[in-house]
Amino acid sequence: MDFLQKLQLCIDKNNSLLSIGLDPDLGKIPKHLLALKYPLFEFNKKIIDATHNLVCAYKPNIAFYEAYGIEGLKSLKKTIDYLKVNFKEIPVILDAKRGDIGNTAKMYAKSVFEYWDADAITVNPYLGFDSIKPFLKYKDKGIITLCRTSNSGASDFQDLLIYPSSEAQAKSRSHSSREARTISKYEPLYIKVARKIVQWNQKYHNCMMVIGATWPEQLRKVREISPNIFFLVPGIGAQGGNLEKTVKNGLRKDKSGLIISLARPIIYASSRKDFAKAAYIKALELKKEINKYRT
Amino acid sequence: MDFLQKLQLCIDKNNSLLSIGLDPDLGKIPKHLLALKYPLFEFNKKIIDATHNLVCAYKPNIAFYEAYGIEGLKSLKKTIDYLKVNFKEIPVILDAKRGDIGNTAKMYAKSVFEYWDADAITVNPYLGFDSIKPFLKYKDKGIITLCRTSNSGASDFQDLLIYPSSEAQAKSRSHSSREARTISKYEPLYIKVARKIVQWNQKYHNCMMVIGATWPEQLRKVREISPNIFFLVPGIGAQGGNLEKTVKNGLRKDKSGLIISLARPIIYASSRKDFAKAAYIKALELKKEINKYRT
Repeated sequence: MDFLQKLQLCIDKNNSLLSIGLDPDLGKIPKHLLALKYPLFEFNKKIIDATHNLVCAYKPNIAFYEAYGIEGLKSLKKTIDYLKVNFKEIPVILDAKRGDIGNTAKMYAKSVFEYWDADAITVNPYLGFDSIKPFLKYKDKGIITLCRTSNSGASDFQDLLIYPSSEAQAKSRSHSSREARTISKYEPLYIKVARKIVQWNQKYHNCMMVIGATWPEQLRKVREISPNIFFLVPGIGAQGGNLEKTVKNGLRKDKSGLIISLARPIIYASSRKDFAKAAYIKALELKKEINKYRT
Repeated sequence: MDFLQKLQLCIDKNNSLLSIGLDPDLGKIPKHLLALKYPLFEFNKKIIDATHNLVCAYKPNIAFYEAYGIEGLKSLKKTIDYLKVNFKEIPVILDAKRGDIGNTAKMYAKSVFEYWDADAITVNPYLGFDSIKPFLKYKDKGIITLCRTSNSGASDFQDLLIYPSSEAQAKSRSHSSREARTISKYEPLYIKVARKIVQWNQKYHNCMMVIGATWPEQLRKVREISPNIFFLVPGIGAQGGNLEKTVKNGLRKDKSGLIISLARPIIYASSRKDFAKAAYIKALELKKEINKYRT
């Protein structure tokens, strides 16, 4: 079973497009966990136990483990192992935003898929196709390329308008189709990236992309040019994205195609011993709200 | 002492612009090391012992350690510790190409500078300024942003021509200076990135950039717009970059300003027990060749 099948099965089983970001921070998790040997793992375990019926995926961001060095990474390993043993039907997206030249990207792919045993990874497009290809070759895994990120700095480069290629201009002159006119216009970088992801997907069938919920208009535009691809959507909650607009602008015709990922509003819903129950309540509320806009 | 001072001192002491990439691969290092507990570290240690008088920096790429999981990362820790104890005058550049939204970038910065104890890091610009800022705030560290990478896929996005901003156009109309006319023209993305790095450096004074030796003409253009910034230049050797053109097009007026990084041609100069001696001979040859073009 490949990643997309696993994901859709989990979406159907739990009737949920919600993903929970497992991004634990020693400064924010309940104090009573700090005395344990692997506090990050113990925190995650309780969150998972409470929410596994409410999610379509878990998304640990590896930075939150790397920050605590090898001990932190042991907690990540224990978390993924715990999921694989107890909830193997739930896909694990390792949010790592890797990107390097081919020879090095191969090592990152080996790390993420063979060592960490993730079902999917996020990658950065700046280095181009040959930096993504070593990941794409893992046909059963999901390769989620950054398109339009949720942060305010996204506009620094992702919004720069691109001069149409000579190919696009020629196509525009020789065709009068709507599509030809559209791609001959100046388009921002993130749209060019989205078009490349669509191309890659035609060959590899395992591509997805990241679009921040903080940019609902951009989300709509990318959905127009990629009607079938899954979007991983961070940015609801702490970052202020609008859930209704996100769902309405991002949903595919089959009412699927979105992984809406939240971390802080769920995992830190309470800072006390009841944190897992509070996470459950918040996740349930979010799952229901997403489904309200979905139908 | 900040990173740039440390780097220049090491350049002067060893009269070298050569950096060695510590990118060990279990499939390529001499077989007799595989029986040891930390083969990647043992390999690096011998390379370091043989070459420490010939380099201006060491550059471990973290992917080569992550590929072997926590055991691999222990070898990275031991390598950096070994350098800090025995050769503390040599800067360590952790090639990690990190990039994420601010809240997460903070965790990566904590990892790289506080846990791994690196003197500098490579970062990816795709997410914009707020993804770089948490690194820049470590004023004593070097922040090396990808500009034009050495791989062939670099052209996929980095070469896309950018429509001049309305600001640039207005400046062009109101000034007749050469600079104003230049920035009002269509420029590729990597030039826009270079201009941003120059801007960031005016405030933070700890910025550098990556430009691949495989693109000597692009290297020259970026040197024109950033006469004072250090370039980290991979791509000589296995990737086919031309050393003479790289040095001539990239050198600053003070005959410094380049970190020329090679891994495979040096660390795999021999696959037998004499690998460290072979690495020394190759590194010496490269150091001398760089210095020939430098003067």
